[in-house]
Amino acid sequence: MPTPFRTSRFVEFSDTDMAGIMHFSAFFRFMEAAEHQLIRSLGFSVYSTVNGDVVSFPRVAASCEFHSPAKCEDVLDIDVTVERVGTKSVTYKFVFTQHGRDVATGQMTSVCCRVPHGQVPVSIAIPAEVASKLRAMAE
Amino acid sequence: MPTPFRTSRFVEFSDTDMAGIMHFSAFFRFMEAAEHQLIRSLGFSVYSTVNGDVVSFPRVAASCEFHSPAKCEDVLDIDVTVERVGTKSVTYKFVFTQHGRDVATGQMTSVCCRVPHGQVPVSIAIPAEVASKLRAMAE
Amino acid sequence: MPTPFRTSRFVEFSDTDMAGIMHFSAFFRFMEAAEHQLIRSLGFSVYSTVNGDVVSFPRVAASCEFHSPAKCEDVLDIDVTVERVGTKSVTYKFVFTQHGRDVATGQMTSVCCRVPHGQVPVSIAIPAEVASKLRAMAE
Amino acid sequence: MPTPFRTSRFVEFSDTDMAGIMHFSAFFRFMEAAEHQLIRSLGFSVYSTVNGDVVSFPRVAASCEFHSPAKCEDVLDIDVTVERVGTKSVTYKFVFTQHGRDVATGQMTSVCCRVPHGQVPVSIAIPAEVASKLRAMAE
Repeated sequence: MPTPFRTSRFVEFSDTDMAGIMHFSAFFRFMEAAEHQLIRSLGFSVYSTVNGDVVSFPRVAASCEFHSPAKCEDVLDIDVTVERVGTKSVTYKFVFTQHGRDVATGQMTSVCCRVPHGQVPVSIAIPAEVASKLRAMAE
Repeated sequence: MPTPFRTSRFVEFSDTDMAGIMHFSAFFRFMEAAEHQLIRSLGFSVYSTVNGDVVSFPRVAASCEFHSPAKCEDVLDIDVTVERVGTKSVTYKFVFTQHGRDVATGQMTSVCCRVPHGQVPVSIAIPAEVASKLRAMAE
Repeated sequence: MPTPFRTSRFVEFSDTDMAGIMHFSAFFRFMEAAEHQLIRSLGFSVYSTVNGDVVSFPRVAASCEFHSPAKCEDVLDIDVTVERVGTKSVTYKFVFTQHGRDVATGQMTSVCCRVPHGQVPVSIAIPAEVASKLRAMAE
Repeated sequence: MPTPFRTSRFVEFSDTDMAGIMHFSAFFRFMEAAEHQLIRSLGFSVYSTVNGDVVSFPRVAASCEFHSPAKCEDVLDIDVTVERVGTKSVTYKFVFTQHGRDVATGQMTSVCCRVPHGQVPVSIAIPAEVASKLRAMAE
């Protein structure tokens, strides 16, 4: 049974739009920030160096379903679950709630990449120590 | 056969991140801007007043798959197809290319809403004149 | 002697640009968020209702000088000083540091406004209870 | 007499906030985009390589005064004037209008830098060919 990683996020004025609610694109920034917190909680950085290589996790897919609006000054609880750990990729699920109210659910798949200077990221196998920690969270 | 609405978008420095490529959340802003251009091309505004009601189209779902990076100063071609027009909602498909290179594909479902002042949007049937124009694009 | 209000802010991946540092426009979002935290610490909201009027503080001026780069995962300390409280406006000064390193200094002047629905904000005198608390911070 | 470089910018839904107007931080993104258009109009890129060095122009100061609100779907005219060209820095002035209405004025000082891979930018003299073109615009 996967253990969710829980974090929270305050909705700022600059996250809102003229409809008076949080702009939908902000959910994707919040998902990324939650993913990075999870990665850091495992002892890695967004930009780790593993075996001498700069290793990062650009996204190949992201989606979100919006169930009810988030408003300025809301504190959103974000539960991140590691859904699948492949050789090169990780899929996360995100559940956004506010005081238990269902706000949104999202999903993101990130691919482990080596990022050579000034070049396009190249996908590689997730380093063993990261993969094992992620797999432990998925079980 | 649906007629795609074509627009394009210049990738600015502020759309990039420290990986040297366009941040994935910018694709969602670009999809929204393209959707709004399509709506305006039909003679409506993002915030239209139809039969005395302020009418807007907040999103209930958005997704994107990223196939190759967009870089600063790239001009992205964006083809928007109206995939489905329901009573209250519209689903769009987006294809991002650069000089024919496949960059990303996305999808968004927007729901027609009345937005009462300071209140949460309330879904309503798409006004007949908007719906018929959108349906014509979907065929 | 003014008492600074101190807060801090984590620099996220999405705050960076392709130069590998935090984008300069993010400093302005951070200043606004710090201003709003200060306002909330006085018992008010970004959008307060005072004497039945919705009251907000749009900006009339903002400036920032950038002394050294902020990087992803930096925690920036932000000291906010209330510099001047006029009848209708407040001027704040912001000092950004990281582990004591001078990162940036900024200034913002916000004007107290009534925001009628769907209309342009109208400047008004700062409500007495807010003004007195702000003046206490400026002394 | 300096020749202003004129460009324009459409205010998008995602540029607005819950006050129903364009967020003040968007003016800074718009100034940067206008600066980069000016630089490109001189035959240079945001990231040029001059004499084998990657050359960029990070900002050391930015300010803006907001005179009247910009709203969604406004087209802002932006006049950029090169105010001062130093050995290492350029100062620009920006005037935002909409159909002649005064919206905002801003200023930005950018410093010519070499950006070594993964390192902090290092200030250098503006390459002669860029400097002479910028000086011609300032006269």
